[in-house]
Amino acid sequence: MASFGDTDERDMISMIRGCIRKAPCDTDDDAAVIPVGRGDLVVCTDSVTFERHKPEGMTFEQFGWMSAAVNMSDLAAMGATPIGIVSALALPKEMDTSDVCTIMTGMDECAEFCGCHILGGDTKPGNGTVAVTALGVMEGRRPMTRKGASPGDVIAVTGDLGAAAAGFLALANGFDIPDAISALCAPIPRIEEGKILSSTGMVTSCIDLSDGLATAVNTICSMNGCGAIIEWDLLPRSPHVDDVCGRLGIGDREITIGWGGEYELLFTFDRKDAEALYDTGVEFSMIGLVTERDVVLHRDGKYEEIANGSY
Amino acid sequence: MASFGDTDERDMISMIRGCIRKAPCDTDDDAAVIPVGRGDLVVCTDSVTFERHKPEGMTFEQFGWMSAAVNMSDLAAMGATPIGIVSALALPKEMDTSDVCTIMTGMDECAEFCGCHILGGDTKPGNGTVAVTALGVMEGRRPMTRKGASPGDVIAVTGDLGAAAAGFLALANGFDIPDAISALCAPIPRIEEGKILSSTGMVTSCIDLSDGLATAVNTICSMNGCGAIIEWDLLPRSPHVDDVCGRLGIGDREITIGWGGEYELLFTFDRKDAEALYDTGVEFSMIGLVTERDVVLHRDGKYEEIANGSY
Repeated sequence: MASFGDTDERDMISMIRGCIRKAPCDTDDDAAVIPVGRGDLVVCTDSVTFERHKPEGMTFEQFGWMSAAVNMSDLAAMGATPIGIVSALALPKEMDTSDVCTIMTGMDECAEFCGCHILGGDTKPGNGTVAVTALGVMEGRRPMTRKGASPGDVIAVTGDLGAAAAGFLALANGFDIPDAISALCAPIPRIEEGKILSSTGMVTSCIDLSDGLATAVNTICSMNGCGAIIEWDLLPRSPHVDDVCGRLGIGDREITIGWGGEYELLFTFDRKDAEALYDTGVEFSMIGLVTERDVVLHRDGKYEEIANGSY
Repeated sequence: MASFGDTDERDMISMIRGCIRKAPCDTDDDAAVIPVGRGDLVVCTDSVTFERHKPEGMTFEQFGWMSAAVNMSDLAAMGATPIGIVSALALPKEMDTSDVCTIMTGMDECAEFCGCHILGGDTKPGNGTVAVTALGVMEGRRPMTRKGASPGDVIAVTGDLGAAAAGFLALANGFDIPDAISALCAPIPRIEEGKILSSTGMVTSCIDLSDGLATAVNTICSMNGCGAIIEWDLLPRSPHVDDVCGRLGIGDREITIGWGGEYELLFTFDRKDAEALYDTGVEFSMIGLVTERDVVLHRDGKYEEIANGSY
C-alpha cells in the first residue's frame, strides 16, 4: 500500500477527487466559487505547520500573519474581496498561551491589512498546524480562474521574484537582509491588485505564486493544454537574489523560479489589452508568452525545459 | 507562563478574543453570521483529532463523517441550510493513502446526507487533525443563537440523551451495542430540525449538545444571565444508558448529562408556543425551565447543582 507521505500531492488530490462526489461548482482553483443570493461567494482553505512553514527565526506573529496571507492570496488570485476568515489551530500542549495569542494577533493583523476580520475558530491540542479558511465575495466581478489562457496570450507577474527564497536562505545562513526575511515571513497578499485585475475582465487566467513561478506556469499550461515561453531577461528578479546567490556561490535560476512561499500573482491576457492593464495602475512585468506546447525558459539564447518547482 | 495544555478552553477563547479585533458580526455562537448580498451566510469551523476523537473501533469512514457532522451540527443549531464544506487535513505520513481517501468518503457521505458538497481542501503532513469549515445560508430565516432565553422559557431537546456516551463505553468495554456505537461514530446532525425550528421564529435560544447537556445548559444560562431547572424524570434517556450502566455498575447521571459527542439540539421557547412547535413535526422533549438563577437538576425530590460536563 502506498503511504500518504510517499504520495505526490497532485496524485493525492486526484485520488481524493475520485472518492468524493463532484461539487456543483468549479474546484480546479485553490478557491471555489459558490453562487449565494445575487453575489458569488469565494471560499478557500489552506493550512501551515510549524514543521514545514516556520523556519528558525520566524516569529509566532509572523507565522500567524502567514497562515492568513496564504489564504488571502488564494482570494486575490480570484479577484475576490475578503469578508472574513475562520481558523482551526492544532497546537502543542506545552506551548505558552501567550504564544497562541501572538499567532492570533498576527493572523488578525493580516486580516486587517486585507480589510476583514477573524469570524471564529477552534483550538485543539496537536502538533502545530494552523488551518485557515478565507471567505470572499466577487461584488459583481467575474472570478479569475486558472482556466482560460490560450496561445498568444502575454504572461505577466506582479511584484518581483525570489525575495522569499532569498529570505529563507538569509535566515538559514545568518545573513542580515531584513527586507528579504520580511518577504518570506510577512508576505503581502495582492488583494488590491487582484480586485483591479478581475474588474477589467481582461485577464484570461490567474494563479498565485505560492508554489513558485515554475509550478504556477506549469499549472496554467496543463490546465489549458498549452505551453509557455518565459524570458529570463524579463523576470523582475529581487535584488536580494543576486545578493544571496553571490554570498553562497549558487546559481540564480532555482531561487528565482523554483521556490514557493511568495505571493505575487501570475496572470495572462491578450496582448492588445496590455496598455489598458497598465493604465489600471497595477504594477506588473510581462515575462513571456503562452504557446502551443512545451514550457520553456529562454536564457542566453538557449531554451531550457521548466519543470515544477522543487520547494 | 501558563501552557496551552493547562489552560481551560474557555479561558483560552477569552484570551484570544482579547488579542484580536472584535468582528463586526456576533461571534458568541459556534457559527458566525455574515450578511452577504440579500442573504445571511453562516460559517463555522471545528476540528477533530485522531487522539481525542477516534476511539479504538471507530473506522476512518466514521471519523470522516464525524469531522463533517460536528460542523453540520453547528449550522443546525443556527437553523442554517448547508451549502458546502472545505477541509484541511494534517495526517501522519505513514498513513495509507487509501485510508486518507476513506476519511474523505465519510466526510462526503455526511455532506451528502446534509444536502451539500465538499468544495475544496488541503492535505498536509501532521499528527492526525481534520479541520472542517462549513458554510450555510439562512434563506430568509432568522438565525437561532445562544442569546435570547429568559426566565419562564421552556427548555427542550431533540432526540434522546446519552447514546453516544453509551457507545463510547460499549467500545471501550467490548459490549456489542451497535446502535449506541453508531450514535457515537456516525452522529446525525439535526439539520432539518434546525431549519424547521428557526423558520417558526419562536425559538428564543439554541445550542447543540456537542459538549453535553450540562455544558449546553450552563452556556445558555451564562450567556443570558439566568438559571435553569432540569427535571431528571423528563430527560429522554437513551435505553442504551441503562444497559451500559447496568453492565458496568455505574451511575446514570454523568453519562446522561455530562458527556459530549452527541449532536441533539437544546432550545428554549415561550411556553405558549409549545403546541405550535409540536405541530411542526419536529420531535422534542420538554425537559425543564429557564429560571432567574442557579442551574440545577431536580431528581428524587432533591435539587443538585449542574456543573459543566466532564467530557
